[in-house]
Amino acid sequence: MLEGLSFDQQKEAQEILEAIKFFSLKGWSPATSTNYSLRLQNDRFLISRSGVDKSQFKLDDLIHINSKGEIYPEFQKPGVKSSAETMIHTSIYARFPEINCVLHTHSVLGTWLSQKFAIEKAIHFNGWELLKGLAGIDTHLTTVTLPIVYNHQDMETLMNEMEYHWAYGPMGFLIAGHGLYTWGRNVFEAKRHIETFEFLFELKKLEK
Amino acid sequence: MLEGLSFDQQKEAQEILEAIKFFSLKGWSPATSTNYSLRLQNDRFLISRSGVDKSQFKLDDLIHINSKGEIYPEFQKPGVKSSAETMIHTSIYARFPEINCVLHTHSVLGTWLSQKFAIEKAIHFNGWELLKGLAGIDTHLTTVTLPIVYNHQDMETLMNEMEYHWAYGPMGFLIAGHGLYTWGRNVFEAKRHIETFEFLFELKKLEK
Amino acid sequence: MLEGLSFDQQKEAQEILEAIKFFSLKGWSPATSTNYSLRLQNDRFLISRSGVDKSQFKLDDLIHINSKGEIYPEFQKPGVKSSAETMIHTSIYARFPEINCVLHTHSVLGTWLSQKFAIEKAIHFNGWELLKGLAGIDTHLTTVTLPIVYNHQDMETLMNEMEYHWAYGPMGFLIAGHGLYTWGRNVFEAKRHIETFEFLFELKKLEK
Amino acid sequence: MLEGLSFDQQKEAQEILEAIKFFSLKGWSPATSTNYSLRLQNDRFLISRSGVDKSQFKLDDLIHINSKGEIYPEFQKPGVKSSAETMIHTSIYARFPEINCVLHTHSVLGTWLSQKFAIEKAIHFNGWELLKGLAGIDTHLTTVTLPIVYNHQDMETLMNEMEYHWAYGPMGFLIAGHGLYTWGRNVFEAKRHIETFEFLFELKKLEK
Repeated sequence: MLEGLSFDQQKEAQEILEAIKFFSLKGWSPATSTNYSLRLQNDRFLISRSGVDKSQFKLDDLIHINSKGEIYPEFQKPGVKSSAETMIHTSIYARFPEINCVLHTHSVLGTWLSQKFAIEKAIHFNGWELLKGLAGIDTHLTTVTLPIVYNHQDMETLMNEMEYHWAYGPMGFLIAGHGLYTWGRNVFEAKRHIETFEFLFELKKLEK
Repeated sequence: MLEGLSFDQQKEAQEILEAIKFFSLKGWSPATSTNYSLRLQNDRFLISRSGVDKSQFKLDDLIHINSKGEIYPEFQKPGVKSSAETMIHTSIYARFPEINCVLHTHSVLGTWLSQKFAIEKAIHFNGWELLKGLAGIDTHLTTVTLPIVYNHQDMETLMNEMEYHWAYGPMGFLIAGHGLYTWGRNVFEAKRHIETFEFLFELKKLEK
Repeated sequence: MLEGLSFDQQKEAQEILEAIKFFSLKGWSPATSTNYSLRLQNDRFLISRSGVDKSQFKLDDLIHINSKGEIYPEFQKPGVKSSAETMIHTSIYARFPEINCVLHTHSVLGTWLSQKFAIEKAIHFNGWELLKGLAGIDTHLTTVTLPIVYNHQDMETLMNEMEYHWAYGPMGFLIAGHGLYTWGRNVFEAKRHIETFEFLFELKKLEK
Repeated sequence: MLEGLSFDQQKEAQEILEAIKFFSLKGWSPATSTNYSLRLQNDRFLISRSGVDKSQFKLDDLIHINSKGEIYPEFQKPGVKSSAETMIHTSIYARFPEINCVLHTHSVLGTWLSQKFAIEKAIHFNGWELLKGLAGIDTHLTTVTLPIVYNHQDMETLMNEMEYHWAYGPMGFLIAGHGLYTWGRNVFEAKRHIETFEFLFELKKLEK
């Protein structure tokens, strides 16, 4: 149990833990890659700490940060760092007040497709029933666009590149050669978005 | 334990739960997709409620409906809806008095093949020993035809399109871009049909 | 625990159960397909009974038969049948006195390759380190030939066709469109042979 | 619990056991293939014994050897042999004083790619974020070279061939048709390297 969390926040933290375990079994988080976060309050977030083997992830590998990505003093311990990609999470929360969970997976297919379509700066998905897995979509007769940004080790540069893409109203994005970011109003919705995009990636591979 | 069920019905409900877990582990029910049902009596059915993550499915996510797809009053709760595809299930039960279980999965391969062969309105499987996994087939020297209907968000339109296909004597059907429906006299047989078709899908992909 | 078995036989029965579970998790025994056996004594064998979902297989789904494939009277129960392919098992035991375990899996790749190479009546594997997974092979610099027989629903016809192949000294064989038979001095060795051939099948698919 | 080990060594032994289980579930150690080791002290190592089914691997299947690969007398038991490839492990420890764990997996993709690129004597990986899974790499804008040596049943010949490759500063190598060796300062790092290379193998397959 995590201290200082409300009953509902405990429940969400437990759900994100189960989602992390699910993604690990799927092979979507190899070699300590990937990161995950939850919004607790305006200026308090839980985020997975850096460098953990996701097949071994535990509740106290979630650490408390503020909206600048700084670890709250009571959670500062030797060797504990927030994910290098923390700024991606906090930027998404700043942009979308209704979003309370951000998930990033690193599957083989997401990685491969993100490189393969990098020059087109997006992948388009059309006509599949599972598009309805994305919030607000209630028919397969639509096209969903998932933008792709180039990979940068500097997070500010990376998020600046996303500026060109927000106009699409994307529900996630790919970083080229790196993987998928998506989000939702809660863990349940964000996990459903990860599963939806990963399924669409499988179809995209077969379509070729 | 589900109240108001006979010993045999409890057993079937438990088996459908195990089948749902099995399909989830196989990746055949991503992102809250898929639905499953059991016939209890002439006018009473158990069906999976809408919007549940199938990796978390529990016995009380099965709700009681009548043959019109209406939830029995004692099972009506806020936020509990029957599957949007309930009418597909009740139509199948109305057509086949001997059928007591209907299963719908949404695998990557079923989805992809259903789109790929949509214009031919069917997939044919021939010569494989595993065809014997389908009820009533006792030799591989036969051809099994699995019809495909276009995807419609309106269930009545969708089932009307199936009218052209019942003459084949199909043991299931695909909805284009959407997935597989099959059925059986009990959960055991219906699950065996799902496994058989999914296996045949894998072979069809390799045959190309 | 199975009655009437020695300590060593109990151990082998337990091992075959674990092997069956392992194969089921791998997806090598879909839709009640596949069968498995153990030699207990000259004229007594354990064999998997027909029609069981292998993800649910239990110790008492192993039944006692004699070398003609007849169920011993004390194991005859309504609805309990020996596998339709029992004669394949008893023929192999009759041919190889040192063999005490026969396993038959039905993987997608085994099924597909067995059809693809059916006209050549064999698949050849060459140069892979894992060939050493087969009994008696201690170098990768060798060629292993796995014969293929056409599929017959009549077991006598099927085994007659194998007559042309025994000269190769095969350690298993494929039935076209149907799957793999292999064997070993004990469950451990026979399971290793299954894993070896399934691995070689994966390589054969990639080699194309 | 293994006798004669310090608390930290016990922890590492437990971690290597969990890594072996993880690799087995991934299908990277079929048919008793693969081997694993830990450095305890200058002249004492734990190494997996030969011929064990890795899905059943237990703590006491790790045996104590010296730097010549000889089993310490108190661990000599009938039928217990050190891995045939023990010399590969001891050579790596002799070369790299900071390395305390050596892991060898035998996945389908590693095996296939090692043969496919054998004539080029190396595989190059470039531009993927997951390259950062390898120790000391902090950007995707780099190329990692994984050397390939021909397969020899004689370990001395095999390691002699590696002599041509150490100049690359490799973090692992492939044996053609045989599989992957990699290592790390501890089990955690070595396991991360296995996962990283296996992920890069998947991408290499898709890139073609």
